[in-house]
Amino acid sequence: MVESEGRIHLNPDIARVVCSVTGSETEAKQFSRPLGLCGCCPPPGKPLVVVYELDTIRERLGDTGWGTDPGIWRYGALLPVLGLPPSYAPDVGLTQAVRSESLTRENGVDLYLKNEGSNPTGSFKDRGLAVGIALGVACGAKRFCLPTQGNAGVAAALFSTRLSLPGCLVYMPENYRGGLYHREAELFGAEVRFAGANIAAAGKVMREAHADELASGQLVDMSTFFEPGRLEGKKTMGFEIVEDFGPGKLPDWIIYPTGGGTGLVGIWKAFQELIALGRLDPTEHSLPRMVAVQSENCAPVIEAFHRGLDHVEPVESEGTVADGLDVPGAIMGHGILATIRESGGTAVAVSEVAIIDAFRVLGRNGIAASYEGAATLAALRKLRADGLVAVGSRVLLLLTANHFVSLGREST
Amino acid sequence: MVESEGRIHLNPDIARVVCSVTGSETEAKQFSRPLGLCGCCPPPGKPLVVVYELDTIRERLGDTGWGTDPGIWRYGALLPVLGLPPSYAPDVGLTQAVRSESLTRENGVDLYLKNEGSNPTGSFKDRGLAVGIALGVACGAKRFCLPTQGNAGVAAALFSTRLSLPGCLVYMPENYRGGLYHREAELFGAEVRFAGANIAAAGKVMREAHADELASGQLVDMSTFFEPGRLEGKKTMGFEIVEDFGPGKLPDWIIYPTGGGTGLVGIWKAFQELIALGRLDPTEHSLPRMVAVQSENCAPVIEAFHRGLDHVEPVESEGTVADGLDVPGAIMGHGILATIRESGGTAVAVSEVAIIDAFRVLGRNGIAASYEGAATLAALRKLRADGLVAVGSRVLLLLTANHFVSLGREST
Repeated sequence: MVESEGRIHLNPDIARVVCSVTGSETEAKQFSRPLGLCGCCPPPGKPLVVVYELDTIRERLGDTGWGTDPGIWRYGALLPVLGLPPSYAPDVGLTQAVRSESLTRENGVDLYLKNEGSNPTGSFKDRGLAVGIALGVACGAKRFCLPTQGNAGVAAALFSTRLSLPGCLVYMPENYRGGLYHREAELFGAEVRFAGANIAAAGKVMREAHADELASGQLVDMSTFFEPGRLEGKKTMGFEIVEDFGPGKLPDWIIYPTGGGTGLVGIWKAFQELIALGRLDPTEHSLPRMVAVQSENCAPVIEAFHRGLDHVEPVESEGTVADGLDVPGAIMGHGILATIRESGGTAVAVSEVAIIDAFRVLGRNGIAASYEGAATLAALRKLRADGLVAVGSRVLLLLTANHFVSLGREST
Repeated sequence: MVESEGRIHLNPDIARVVCSVTGSETEAKQFSRPLGLCGCCPPPGKPLVVVYELDTIRERLGDTGWGTDPGIWRYGALLPVLGLPPSYAPDVGLTQAVRSESLTRENGVDLYLKNEGSNPTGSFKDRGLAVGIALGVACGAKRFCLPTQGNAGVAAALFSTRLSLPGCLVYMPENYRGGLYHREAELFGAEVRFAGANIAAAGKVMREAHADELASGQLVDMSTFFEPGRLEGKKTMGFEIVEDFGPGKLPDWIIYPTGGGTGLVGIWKAFQELIALGRLDPTEHSLPRMVAVQSENCAPVIEAFHRGLDHVEPVESEGTVADGLDVPGAIMGHGILATIRESGGTAVAVSEVAIIDAFRVLGRNGIAASYEGAATLAALRKLRADGLVAVGSRVLLLLTANHFVSLGREST
């Protein structure tokens, strides 16, 4: 039961905030205004990343476990913002990796599923937005805006209204009008506008239409990787994976459906922080290989990986049933590609037919997940067929959302 | 992480199964076939209830906590069926009571919400069906059928497919065709048929169409209270409430949206079992007053309560936006009414307008719940206006499902 009150404040163990490309420290430790992109790279800048005083945290935590706060707040020592009202986000995170006997048999690997559908808006976006919105508020933000490919806009609306902020301003692609995402965002008090065919186009319109408010700080841009809080929220998946499996029994592969890539980069960041805290030893424990999955219809990350680039070049999306994968660019492309390569992972594009088929297979196996999650099963099948993932490997599929919107989408 | 394997078996501490009206023991301890309604009352019979060897369990558990199995299985000592495969239902239950600061202020009571939306199919029905399907299988059932007002059919489909049983046979009201419930049930392998305007009509058609298979045991009827397992699953909400609040700080009122009433009766049964186990002392701890809520358009329980009846007489439903409340009869009416009266509670009908308004209020307060849950907030407002619930009372609203289907319903 969640009862006591707090006051929103920055984690005093934040060491600095650095540019993800140059590593330069771009902001003072006490943030007097919400953090955006870096100032050191050419405009609009590159994503900032929070760095903690890990030695201090290591000493203080010692060998004890994590905190006792509910959900993701048990990892508060490594989150940038603390002291949230207890009813703010006690219901986010702590999803469990569950082994599927039937899918294990069917795919010849030791198969685990981490289903994010139990989060309050039914997706992993709740992790990032719960932390991102809170961090923004701790730095003085009064109202947020973002373009969305669906779930993120709903989550931003939810956490805005939970702090009684003015309704989040959410830009959705034109064809989302009247659909579940639209109604959800409005239920949670958002002001919803429509523009373009996907998140990139909607974001462009949003930034032009609100240039003045964004410049003055009246509005804060919560786009993927445009501020460092969402990454911090998403990394809690990494902490949970290590707690759940144990450091010595981590998955050999983590297969992740990649839109903006916050979760992929976040999970890897969590592993690095745990290494610094002495809770994971890379000389003794093998870290998982990270696999990015996209739809063949919109695969900028997969293309960049196989071309050997160190950044992601935008593509023209042909559209995909997996809303969250309809992301034609990636401002953190360099981080996604570095994560895949450092981990010894790979990048896989799967067809629309394979995604839809995998969605049905998950359902018949009693797994309530969305098309984005289904793409990871489609990728596993491909990696098995290609011999890249060996028989008996321990594989974790990240199922990023529940099944409702995918089913609802079919009617539109 | 959930990994090891088991074998489905009955809890050896089941003492007997008794008729909920006469108390007669109608079945032997070793159940050689699935349990249905009692044989002692006039056909079709009345609900059976599982009774445990509570002294034995009390001695064995001692002062230790509950088990360490995931979700509702931590209460395995008081569940009728054990040894399920670990991937069967690790994701059911353990929803948390969260205090809402804003709704506390708005309603002048100390307000807590228990949101069941994090269950795998997004509703509290997962609790009942996870246990009901498993108990049926432990007693030899091979395939299940049920009429549904929505969520129950989806949950029955999910747990059937998780045990690789033949697709659950689900009868839905005609107007559910093509909607989210229909698609969900089919995703989880159900065979869906349509009949009538609501669950009562659909159930009648189902029982006539499959009389032979039901009589021979080829099909087992999982209708609300037609077998005792669903009640056992639902009672886990009661265990969680006591664990969450603590025995000395239980809510003064629990407000519950009542269709068939399994949860209301189940929560009360849990309290009685905890008393017998010495974990709750009714001389020292006040038990919550239980409030049943229905829509004015379909309020058989409310009518029976205020007429002073000891059973519920069917009504003609005029339909309600709260699908789960569109239940024109209640075979366990005697149990529902006894629970309300023993607890010193009451029964409240709320208007459709009040339900829809409360749904919007929940949304604006960042609570992702369905129309059925919203009916409890509408009831609280009415009880406050009538002076029945005093200022400062500790109130728990049971929010039985997430917001997706209610939002999806608006388009149909």
